[in-house]
Amino acid sequence: MKTNEFELIERLKKRIPRKLQGLIPIGDDDAGGLKIREGESLFVSTDSIVEGIDFEMKKARPELVGRKALAINLSDMAAMAARPRGFVIALGIPPSMKESWLDQFYSGMMLLAARHQVACLGGDISRASEFSAAVTVFGESSSGKVILRSGARPGDLLAVTGCLGGSILRHQFLFEPRVREALFLANYFKVHAMIDLSDGLVQDLGHLLKASGVGASVDLARVPVSQDAVKWSHGKKEEALTCALSDGEDFELLFTVSASEQKKLDVAWRKKFPSVRLSWIGRVTARKKELVWTRGAKPADLPKLSEKGYRHF
Amino acid sequence: MKTNEFELIERLKKRIPRKLQGLIPIGDDDAGGLKIREGESLFVSTDSIVEGIDFEMKKARPELVGRKALAINLSDMAAMAARPRGFVIALGIPPSMKESWLDQFYSGMMLLAARHQVACLGGDISRASEFSAAVTVFGESSSGKVILRSGARPGDLLAVTGCLGGSILRHQFLFEPRVREALFLANYFKVHAMIDLSDGLVQDLGHLLKASGVGASVDLARVPVSQDAVKWSHGKKEEALTCALSDGEDFELLFTVSASEQKKLDVAWRKKFPSVRLSWIGRVTARKKELVWTRGAKPADLPKLSEKGYRHF
Repeated sequence: MKTNEFELIERLKKRIPRKLQGLIPIGDDDAGGLKIREGESLFVSTDSIVEGIDFEMKKARPELVGRKALAINLSDMAAMAARPRGFVIALGIPPSMKESWLDQFYSGMMLLAARHQVACLGGDISRASEFSAAVTVFGESSSGKVILRSGARPGDLLAVTGCLGGSILRHQFLFEPRVREALFLANYFKVHAMIDLSDGLVQDLGHLLKASGVGASVDLARVPVSQDAVKWSHGKKEEALTCALSDGEDFELLFTVSASEQKKLDVAWRKKFPSVRLSWIGRVTARKKELVWTRGAKPADLPKLSEKGYRHF
Repeated sequence: MKTNEFELIERLKKRIPRKLQGLIPIGDDDAGGLKIREGESLFVSTDSIVEGIDFEMKKARPELVGRKALAINLSDMAAMAARPRGFVIALGIPPSMKESWLDQFYSGMMLLAARHQVACLGGDISRASEFSAAVTVFGESSSGKVILRSGARPGDLLAVTGCLGGSILRHQFLFEPRVREALFLANYFKVHAMIDLSDGLVQDLGHLLKASGVGASVDLARVPVSQDAVKWSHGKKEEALTCALSDGEDFELLFTVSASEQKKLDVAWRKKFPSVRLSWIGRVTARKKELVWTRGAKPADLPKLSEKGYRHF
């Protein structure tokens, strides 16, 4: 198969009649949705972790792999501002697997489930050549309003939670899904569009802008670079910025919000989430598909992006 | 790993705090459930199909594999008398896979989805050594009442839909999930317990009786033996009966119902589902864990069961 992940999704999507795709066309957002009855919708997302692709069996701690299998799905719920309620897990188990590894995998997963009060509603076990865990999570919109990628409006400000890049060092296993932050944003502020950063800031910003039919101007000087991005780049500043722009698996939230909300949100955020950075990195423009980079007020070129830190399908 | 499927589920279940298990303890029924709000519950089930375990890539038609990946999950919803509403699918895709195979897989799946008006809400794609499809389906209880395995009462009659055994020949790919039948039973009759037959009549009846804390008497002469069970047994009657009792993947419904409902149900069933056989195979007793076999009124021994027609985890 020579098709890449995005091409394959587009191809398979054509096999799914639009009327069978629910509220949100397949691939258009971080989760699918279904109207259960008037005023009530359910959101659902599925994401897998596979040995050899997403982690190395001999290197990764099983409780952290289990934690991550659930965390990536909670992050998808957060991206929609949906409150995750329950999940199921389908495991592929190789004959060589030790029961004790699975015990620890489950322990790590359940600690995170308990923390977010998400119910584990069942699972499935199959023999397979390598270990895999396909987690499906579903949730509901707590405020009755869901936040799509496609809602960004010209004039909105662009904001991002946390610090970016270098997730390969630790963050990819230890990140905290931004569920509470997302619900807070949806409940109290005019957030128009949101996505979680799984493919890297540049790529995911592209998804959001494309879905919304808008452009943006981003200030490179305001992109929050993580300590691990600096470490991974051996202290080289420009390389660390490149990591922050292109490394995958940050699982932070990128969102757009009415410019009039900035001050109020800044104050409320610092009070509610004092340990989570919030960075205002740019502005949404009406120039469809046009992405402009600056450093402060000056135009700038986007650094050449690396692919390191992330491996794709 | 030397643990078998049931032992492993029991082991992993211990890692899941009871309060995180939702309405139905893990492994106790065909699906998990979660109370969304007062009077409203959601049911969810996940089941996988893996190349080399559940089908052979070179032999099976891709549209039938796709159909089956969804059908086994719809059957789990039927077993709870839940109306399936939506599903997601997580695919493991080997590098050698052809796009056209996936196209047909999707086409088969979507035909069944359209037939049952179940929405496809999304998916996930990962590289893997062999093809696998983990489908998760969720549904709601249409009558406000769900039917568990654990509700059987002494005096209930035992009934089974369709014909049993020999599913390896065709039925495992072509069976029609008994969703409409299950909703009809739940809506109009005093059905107390239900399960879908995936592990074979004897084993699944055992699950139902154990969950309900009751026993049963079953008339071997009334067990509906399929034509394919006869064919698979080269016309040998006793061997065909053995298939009907022990072959897996019938995906028919086994249920218990108040004895007073028998006549009314028989008449209504023939009118509503003229092409689906309904067989009254026995009676629930108060003798916990005791399973008695008869042929007509006479006591009988259970034939020695084979494992053919089905391969376990």
